[in-house]
Amino acid sequence: MPVPNQTLDAVLAQVDASLDQSLERLFSLLRIKSISTDPAFASDCQRAADWLTENLQSLGFVATARPTPGHPVVVAHQHDAAGPHVLFYGHYDVQPVDPLNLWHADPFEPQIKQGPDGKIIVGRGTSDDKGQLMTFVEACRAWKAATGALPVRISMMLEGEEESGGKNLPPFMRANADELKADIALVCDTDMWDRKTPSITTMLRGLVGEEIEITCANKDLHSGMFGNAARNPIQVLANIIADLRRPDGSVTLEGFYDDVAEVPDAVKAGWRDLGFDDVAFLEGAGLALPAGEQNRSVLEQIWARPTCEINGITGGYTGDGFKTVIPARASAKISFRLVSGMDPDKIRTAFRKHVRDRLPEDCTVEFSEHGGAPAITVPSDGIFLQKALAALTDEWPNPAAITGSGGSIPVAGEFKKILDMDTLLIGFAHVDDAIHSPNEKYDLASFHGGIRSWVRILAGFAD
Amino acid sequence: MPVPNQTLDAVLAQVDASLDQSLERLFSLLRIKSISTDPAFASDCQRAADWLTENLQSLGFVATARPTPGHPVVVAHQHDAAGPHVLFYGHYDVQPVDPLNLWHADPFEPQIKQGPDGKIIVGRGTSDDKGQLMTFVEACRAWKAATGALPVRISMMLEGEEESGGKNLPPFMRANADELKADIALVCDTDMWDRKTPSITTMLRGLVGEEIEITCANKDLHSGMFGNAARNPIQVLANIIADLRRPDGSVTLEGFYDDVAEVPDAVKAGWRDLGFDDVAFLEGAGLALPAGEQNRSVLEQIWARPTCEINGITGGYTGDGFKTVIPARASAKISFRLVSGMDPDKIRTAFRKHVRDRLPEDCTVEFSEHGGAPAITVPSDGIFLQKALAALTDEWPNPAAITGSGGSIPVAGEFKKILDMDTLLIGFAHVDDAIHSPNEKYDLASFHGGIRSWVRILAGFAD
Repeated sequence: MPVPNQTLDAVLAQVDASLDQSLERLFSLLRIKSISTDPAFASDCQRAADWLTENLQSLGFVATARPTPGHPVVVAHQHDAAGPHVLFYGHYDVQPVDPLNLWHADPFEPQIKQGPDGKIIVGRGTSDDKGQLMTFVEACRAWKAATGALPVRISMMLEGEEESGGKNLPPFMRANADELKADIALVCDTDMWDRKTPSITTMLRGLVGEEIEITCANKDLHSGMFGNAARNPIQVLANIIADLRRPDGSVTLEGFYDDVAEVPDAVKAGWRDLGFDDVAFLEGAGLALPAGEQNRSVLEQIWARPTCEINGITGGYTGDGFKTVIPARASAKISFRLVSGMDPDKIRTAFRKHVRDRLPEDCTVEFSEHGGAPAITVPSDGIFLQKALAALTDEWPNPAAITGSGGSIPVAGEFKKILDMDTLLIGFAHVDDAIHSPNEKYDLASFHGGIRSWVRILAGFAD
Repeated sequence: MPVPNQTLDAVLAQVDASLDQSLERLFSLLRIKSISTDPAFASDCQRAADWLTENLQSLGFVATARPTPGHPVVVAHQHDAAGPHVLFYGHYDVQPVDPLNLWHADPFEPQIKQGPDGKIIVGRGTSDDKGQLMTFVEACRAWKAATGALPVRISMMLEGEEESGGKNLPPFMRANADELKADIALVCDTDMWDRKTPSITTMLRGLVGEEIEITCANKDLHSGMFGNAARNPIQVLANIIADLRRPDGSVTLEGFYDDVAEVPDAVKAGWRDLGFDDVAFLEGAGLALPAGEQNRSVLEQIWARPTCEINGITGGYTGDGFKTVIPARASAKISFRLVSGMDPDKIRTAFRKHVRDRLPEDCTVEFSEHGGAPAITVPSDGIFLQKALAALTDEWPNPAAITGSGGSIPVAGEFKKILDMDTLLIGFAHVDDAIHSPNEKYDLASFHGGIRSWVRILAGFAD
């Protein structure tokens, strides 16, 4: 049933009038230190789940925080409306905050500040993903406040392990498939194209995470006594890492590109029309030269080509001063972003072979798995996508764009595989949000415009 | 004036009778956390210097803890005897204790335990160098207790920055050259050949320490958004480190071997006679394959060939779990052991060129210098050396050996350069003492036999 224009206007007016209260609720959630990857913060993750459960109950949802072997999943339903049934997904967990000394303020004491492009909300999780998920929750609140009802049937699934491998979510989805199945999944964890142009993301890279620890000697050794004769695990690790990329920037793993399709010329032409500025993109990060495969544009490198990144390394003495030690062990965290067609298991196997092939006979390696998910491509011709594009276009200065993303949102693949459900990836973040980094922020315009966008999208779906 | 046999026997009997009190004094010194490289322990270094000053004053020395821009140098004199004048050198500072979780007990709460080869004293600094320096101090105490006098004129210089670059000692020696100049310098900071065979070390490698920090982006980046396009400083660092050695184990720096002389065949033959067991040496560290230059024996690799070691590396996320970050920075601590003829400045320059040559144009590197000293060779034909060899041979089951060492004791070079004084390097440590490592230990037999050895050596010098 179409939503009358005056109803939509009333809900949007409600969003505008209650923005300060919406921010207060967001700040309460942001203050909870729900770092999922660090066991020290397990009770904070539980607190965030409980906070969300109560918040959704106050909105009339039947909401519960469901236990898993890891952190809880918040599930909520409100099915009084006619019309389609949507399942909204977000995650309440956040990345660790180190290096803490680079933050200008407490990461868990959010603040509104003036940024170069308008006001910003600064703090861990503001953009990834508490700020984004709250745009949807606050849109529901505005609908309820202004009209007493939601315009469509809404379920939510808010998880707490997106930043730490998310191993427990697929079994949870399988065990609760009947309850979670809806007509379409909505995910708010992606970027706008730019500050004037909203975006629906239809291509996402997959992810394989691996941690390796190389052990050489059975104890730390004195480099004067043993240097030259004793194998140094940092040297071994450096050799393994150096061999991961060729001088031309391509990744050396056996079969790494076997299942990678070339992007059709027509699609590349569409990307060129977006006017993406390679130089400006890198300049924003203080860089000048693209580091990956040469002869491919930056957009192709980050949207459509797989990558290998060293996310962390440690070994030996890393404190102040100097210690002439040959350590017994050295370790690294390494991840691969995958594109459509690549098999995470095959890439993991190729990586482990790469390491073992370069390991001296008297050394050992231990592998730890940190998540694996294939890339996904969302069909770009569905009715929900068309309605969402129209709603976004009504809200923002420029028409909505259909884009790819270098990031990975494994849950979208799981929605298709487990629940046979397509996903719309609609988010309001920006590439300069510094997610996973010190001084993460979310534009106040993203939060405000995001709430208004969801109000319009839900109205569109009811139509 | 020759020392009568019964006098020597009385002093040795005094050593044996007061061993428990000697250990108590050693333990008091070991409990002081004099980690020189970490500014947090500066007051502990001062305490160690004060403790030694008082201990030496109680022995009749005129002793003072002299300030320097870093930690104090303890200088002591007792010149009542006739005969030659010796300057004893040791250091009261110790290495950091991390990784602390690998220690079986508090590193600064020394304990006597049963080791595989007899009783051992476990704790940081037991072997390097507090236990060693106290063998000399306790030998002096036994002389005073048994005879009321020292047999020769003795000065001491005990420094607190040997483990942290030791930049302040050469200026201190130049400023106090007249006071410090003696007939011979004695240094107790080296190993025995084996548990039955004492050793005087006449070849020591030099050391160049460098810390490098590579910066790529101006902030930590999300590997999904930027991976492939943004330069990863860990990858850059790994490439630089991997390029430091060729597959044959040799070091790649320009001119690295230019000033390295081949060891004469006769010397190599002498080393073969020592019966050094390459396999057993590596097996003791849990290794099987020598890692350095191929076609050279382990003994040649560690005594007579320069080396390059990575002593520490860090970058990105190193905590529990996983974080898909491309860090802005990564750093490493790298040291070079030099052999006779090599110029530390030339090696440092070659290393920095190696790094800069491999640095992408839009990245930067910062270098920090951590000490630099040439290798030294002590003449093996002096009268003091001959007397010391004889005294050591009297004390231990096997005749004393003349050996090299892979370690670096820069002060021996400074004694020659600044004070025109030769040095005897006589120590009682063992290769399995785990110096610079968790669970450092010193054999009780090293401590006891070390004190007895110095008693005999001082008697020999008086002769």
